[in-house]
Amino acid sequence: MTQIELAKNKKYSREMKAISRREGLNLRILCERIARGRIVILQNNKRRLPKFCAVGEGLSTKINVNLGTSSGNPSLKRELEKLKIAIQYGADTVMDLSIGGDLKRIRKEIIEYSPLPVGTVPIYEAAVNAERKYGSFLKMHKEELFDILEQQAADGVDFFTLHAGVTMKNLSLLSGNNKRLTGIVSRGGAILASWMKKNKCENPLFKYFDRVLDIAYRYDVTLSLGDGLRPGSIFDANDRAQNAELKTLGELAKRAWGKCVQVMIEGPGHVRLDKIRQNVLLEKRLCQGAPFYVLGPLVTDIASGYDHISSAIGGAIAASYGADFLCFVTPSEHLRLPSLEDVKNGIIASRIAAHSSDLVKEIKPALQWDREMSIARGKRDWNTQIKLSLNPQKSMHYYGKKKGLSHKKVCSMCGEYCAIKLSDNP
Amino acid sequence: MTQIELAKNKKYSREMKAISRREGLNLRILCERIARGRIVILQNNKRRLPKFCAVGEGLSTKINVNLGTSSGNPSLKRELEKLKIAIQYGADTVMDLSIGGDLKRIRKEIIEYSPLPVGTVPIYEAAVNAERKYGSFLKMHKEELFDILEQQAADGVDFFTLHAGVTMKNLSLLSGNNKRLTGIVSRGGAILASWMKKNKCENPLFKYFDRVLDIAYRYDVTLSLGDGLRPGSIFDANDRAQNAELKTLGELAKRAWGKCVQVMIEGPGHVRLDKIRQNVLLEKRLCQGAPFYVLGPLVTDIASGYDHISSAIGGAIAASYGADFLCFVTPSEHLRLPSLEDVKNGIIASRIAAHSSDLVKEIKPALQWDREMSIARGKRDWNTQIKLSLNPQKSMHYYGKKKGLSHKKVCSMCGEYCAIKLSDNP
Repeated sequence: MTQIELAKNKKYSREMKAISRREGLNLRILCERIARGRIVILQNNKRRLPKFCAVGEGLSTKINVNLGTSSGNPSLKRELEKLKIAIQYGADTVMDLSIGGDLKRIRKEIIEYSPLPVGTVPIYEAAVNAERKYGSFLKMHKEELFDILEQQAADGVDFFTLHAGVTMKNLSLLSGNNKRLTGIVSRGGAILASWMKKNKCENPLFKYFDRVLDIAYRYDVTLSLGDGLRPGSIFDANDRAQNAELKTLGELAKRAWGKCVQVMIEGPGHVRLDKIRQNVLLEKRLCQGAPFYVLGPLVTDIASGYDHISSAIGGAIAASYGADFLCFVTPSEHLRLPSLEDVKNGIIASRIAAHSSDLVKEIKPALQWDREMSIARGKRDWNTQIKLSLNPQKSMHYYGKKKGLSHKKVCSMCGEYCAIKLSDNP
Repeated sequence: MTQIELAKNKKYSREMKAISRREGLNLRILCERIARGRIVILQNNKRRLPKFCAVGEGLSTKINVNLGTSSGNPSLKRELEKLKIAIQYGADTVMDLSIGGDLKRIRKEIIEYSPLPVGTVPIYEAAVNAERKYGSFLKMHKEELFDILEQQAADGVDFFTLHAGVTMKNLSLLSGNNKRLTGIVSRGGAILASWMKKNKCENPLFKYFDRVLDIAYRYDVTLSLGDGLRPGSIFDANDRAQNAELKTLGELAKRAWGKCVQVMIEGPGHVRLDKIRQNVLLEKRLCQGAPFYVLGPLVTDIASGYDHISSAIGGAIAASYGADFLCFVTPSEHLRLPSLEDVKNGIIASRIAAHSSDLVKEIKPALQWDREMSIARGKRDWNTQIKLSLNPQKSMHYYGKKKGLSHKKVCSMCGEYCAIKLSDNP
């Protein structure tokens, strides 16, 4: 039985028990929310993760880290190093978005080495295979896509991003008067849209959604219904196509719950700061409270090179209004495949966003963390402050070890004029 | 006459005319807002800045960069290098917060080299002088403080941070049941509070506020009424002491306007994300719409080493609700005097925050910037994207120059699977 099926039958799985304990959410409430689709547990039933990860209402905000090769950089080794960084700096999940090299092997290795839930976008592998086999991904057969879904699920993938809302009808909203500045910016969405256009047929993930559900059910793979029509510019945000797709995703979520399949909804993208709230509330309404997994949102289009900051602003706001899961964005967004350092900086920015919203959500361990830091700060106890910081190594390096300073319990900014010191000993 | 005096007399100064043109705000409205204290022009009447800078309602959000030596690092040279970086990366103003070395000389050099308005916290120099003269800043005579105000104004300082709201009465709210985790965290506030406690007398900047106004009036120095009791922890935010001080600052602002002195109000500090709005609205109400200059706010206490990100989140939100001026925060906050690289990263984070809020404020050049970037992105024109980014040098380095990529107009993230390329040529 899947977690949602167990929950509907009021059965407490060991995953639920562990999550209830760790997150401090009453087990009965947790179970009810899983049954109603408001919380998902990300774990393929072929896997036994060392630390279970749940996403949704009343839980701490989670962050995802994207891994994955590109055609120009097909090195598995580098992606495994990124995985290590993801684990070290506190990611909750990873996604393998590889499109270069031996995709099957890369996926298997990432799953093997990852103690975190692993997500994928199966259309990538299907497209790359078709490209290699037929010379063009446009020649992909729909059965090949379903074979990939089955294979990836059997290999232990914990969640799938499926752009099932990229339908003929929703795509038609992108043309004419609704034309966007940046069109489609989702890689998976664009692959499907091109394929649909070329082959003049409906999105197979939408048309045969029951087949998708059968596979997901058998392995308890959580579906992350992708927003293939998310905005790639603040001027394209909250437009008809985006909202229509969201409505479709809400309908698909209902069908998933009917078949005891867990489901999340993906969200934008590029959104002006003051429109984020509306986006989150709309998702919660149209998708009946399904967990909301946002990519950003980036609050401006001009922050290339620093999009982890633009995304931290948007992510913190989105999560403070109820988004449950943040996909990290690195400084390399819009420019290149991220380096190891980019991945680290992206994770930390995303954790700051998630954590700031957890303070608003009044998640107890989050509040406790800030309280301990503030107490240490009030005592001018830099050792504890460094220990409690997101990257103690960096903090230690910054604070330095000048004997005078640590002896006097001040930092090199204010020295003897440290406000807290003055207040203690005027 | 000061700018506010001219405005009250419905006279348009050349500063007003230039600002009206650059900011696209109707001259009559600009002048009215200056008269009512809702906009300030930061310029000592002894200076003639190459580019005038105004702060307040309907204008783009400005950012300030702190410079200044510490006792351990008294190098003027390094601070002048920081000034260069501030200019290069788009700061609107700088503040000289030096407490180490030859303070007078440092200030004069910064003023001489800075094409941007220069602010100071005069109590620092008064305290350091007293420390050097008497062995303790607690022995400072109030006349020495006023001498410094006069001297700094005569030297051309454009705005003063004065913690005039740190009164005996407001300080009393910090004790007993209202005890904070981090007490006073404002350096100027703590110096004054210690001095007041030791000398058992009221804050001279409050008690003799009319003398302050006389000096400010003569040189048209804008007063930035400092929040000496700002919270240093999210748990201390919006408490009685902070709000009482804000009320005092509102009353002082009225007195300043009465004497034709321009005034801004400073704000926190550390504030939980969902309480920022309340803070901004309270300032606008209690201080009759005086420009709000915030330090952060940091939305969590635990981001040491990355507080520029925590601050960008809070600053973007504050400014989107009406804060007018953001003081940058660097990654070194709480840990050390910032390095040149820290200053650069702090400025860029702060600019992202200011710019994202300008999109909400519908500042036309800000919207235009995002529009141009999105159009370039939609055309996969990386040269223009790089040119329009905050740090083109970094973007160029990231994008790289691999011939294949720029020839194909894609980046190394998606390569041939670039969503925008697929949408163009399915």
